[in-house]
Amino acid sequence: MTEPVTAAMLAIGDELLSGRTKDRNIGYLADLMTLKGIDLKEVRIVADETAAIVEALNALRARYTYVFTSGGIGPTHDDITADAVAAALGVAIGHDPRAMKLLGDHYASRGLEFTDARQRMARIPDGADLIDNPVSIAPGFRLGNVHVMAGVPAIFQAMLDSVGPTLAGGVPLLSRTVECPFGEGDIGGPLTEIQRAQPDTAIGSYPRFDGKRYSTQIVIRSRDAAACEKAEAAVKDMLTQLRG
Amino acid sequence: MTEPVTAAMLAIGDELLSGRTKDRNIGYLADLMTLKGIDLKEVRIVADETAAIVEALNALRARYTYVFTSGGIGPTHDDITADAVAAALGVAIGHDPRAMKLLGDHYASRGLEFTDARQRMARIPDGADLIDNPVSIAPGFRLGNVHVMAGVPAIFQAMLDSVGPTLAGGVPLLSRTVECPFGEGDIGGPLTEIQRAQPDTAIGSYPRFDGKRYSTQIVIRSRDAAACEKAEAAVKDMLTQLRG
Repeated sequence: MTEPVTAAMLAIGDELLSGRTKDRNIGYLADLMTLKGIDLKEVRIVADETAAIVEALNALRARYTYVFTSGGIGPTHDDITADAVAAALGVAIGHDPRAMKLLGDHYASRGLEFTDARQRMARIPDGADLIDNPVSIAPGFRLGNVHVMAGVPAIFQAMLDSVGPTLAGGVPLLSRTVECPFGEGDIGGPLTEIQRAQPDTAIGSYPRFDGKRYSTQIVIRSRDAAACEKAEAAVKDMLTQLRG
Repeated sequence: MTEPVTAAMLAIGDELLSGRTKDRNIGYLADLMTLKGIDLKEVRIVADETAAIVEALNALRARYTYVFTSGGIGPTHDDITADAVAAALGVAIGHDPRAMKLLGDHYASRGLEFTDARQRMARIPDGADLIDNPVSIAPGFRLGNVHVMAGVPAIFQAMLDSVGPTLAGGVPLLSRTVECPFGEGDIGGPLTEIQRAQPDTAIGSYPRFDGKRYSTQIVIRSRDAAACEKAEAAVKDMLTQLRG
């Protein structure tokens, strides 16, 4: 049995907590982690406050294989993620020559001034690798197990797509979904028995409510193909009996 | 100056971390908190694991005025939130007579068996108040400053709507939004000056990218109406000068 590969996400931004912006990055990261066999174990959302970012980041990076952050790496005064990450990891931060060149060339080619604000986006903690940003050039970065990415969904996704191939994946989680026309109240008892009989699987049931009645999706997850099949067969038997 | 009223959310569910379900409750809660003048300070998402729920809940309930949880209060074996909340708060849990009557009457009126699984939904920690569930009857509950609600968005929202009037709101946060045709790189410098001159406001800038160019929404937030107006006027002056 290989060690499971784990991940956490830290989404940073007042706008997520005020309701102004509805997050779309968590789900995107979750889908990619599942595809790679990496267990996303925890997500936190915090405000643009140095102390909150530092505390959450240090808790998460000590505990999980990978940490991914979103938000707070733009050119304005409220973009403090890079400085907070440097503080959390105890390293210096300054204008990174690689990022200065990328951004300087980019703005020069567009005839735009490379303002102090724009130069803020070249602030990268010492020792970090840059993460490519094909959308708007200003790079993210990786330092240790922490991957720092933009909050704008199109850019977050592009950065994550470029990070993806560098991640060591785990054994992919197998997943079988069984559509169930009964509500959880009807299946809860027998499903508990199936879960007990198949401890190497994690069986989840997800109710849907159409305004009048419930149905359920039953999802069996396991890294063990035989256990997954046995549990799926048991769930299907259960449905046959309930249809009676 | 009155003490700020703060809140945190704990969303519980493997399905949120696997990507199978994309959360829609965080944004709904965030909007309501903003409306009530309550500062939503932190959100965490954890799996259906007792240890993870207990740790996150104890961290959040000690720190914020209110905690709201979503998910894990249905009738199946993976619905462990009520038991985890009881463990976190160090109280006993059992089948609550009020919830048993609500659910018993409900299933009787529909000619459905009140199965052991359905009775699981009446497990409520000792000393808790019930939270009304007009959608599917099975109640949420409040214990201390912790509000435990369902994960199905229609039910989460209905429960939160019934909890809303019981919450002590803070001084509502005033918010002014200025649409800005310039990207953050153009406004970052002058905006920093405006923020410095108006320390009683929090000025955020939120980039939008249409695939070709950036524009920005500038949002000024404050509990002080005069400061808010001054900052808004300064931002508008800045735009006039940039349009030059």
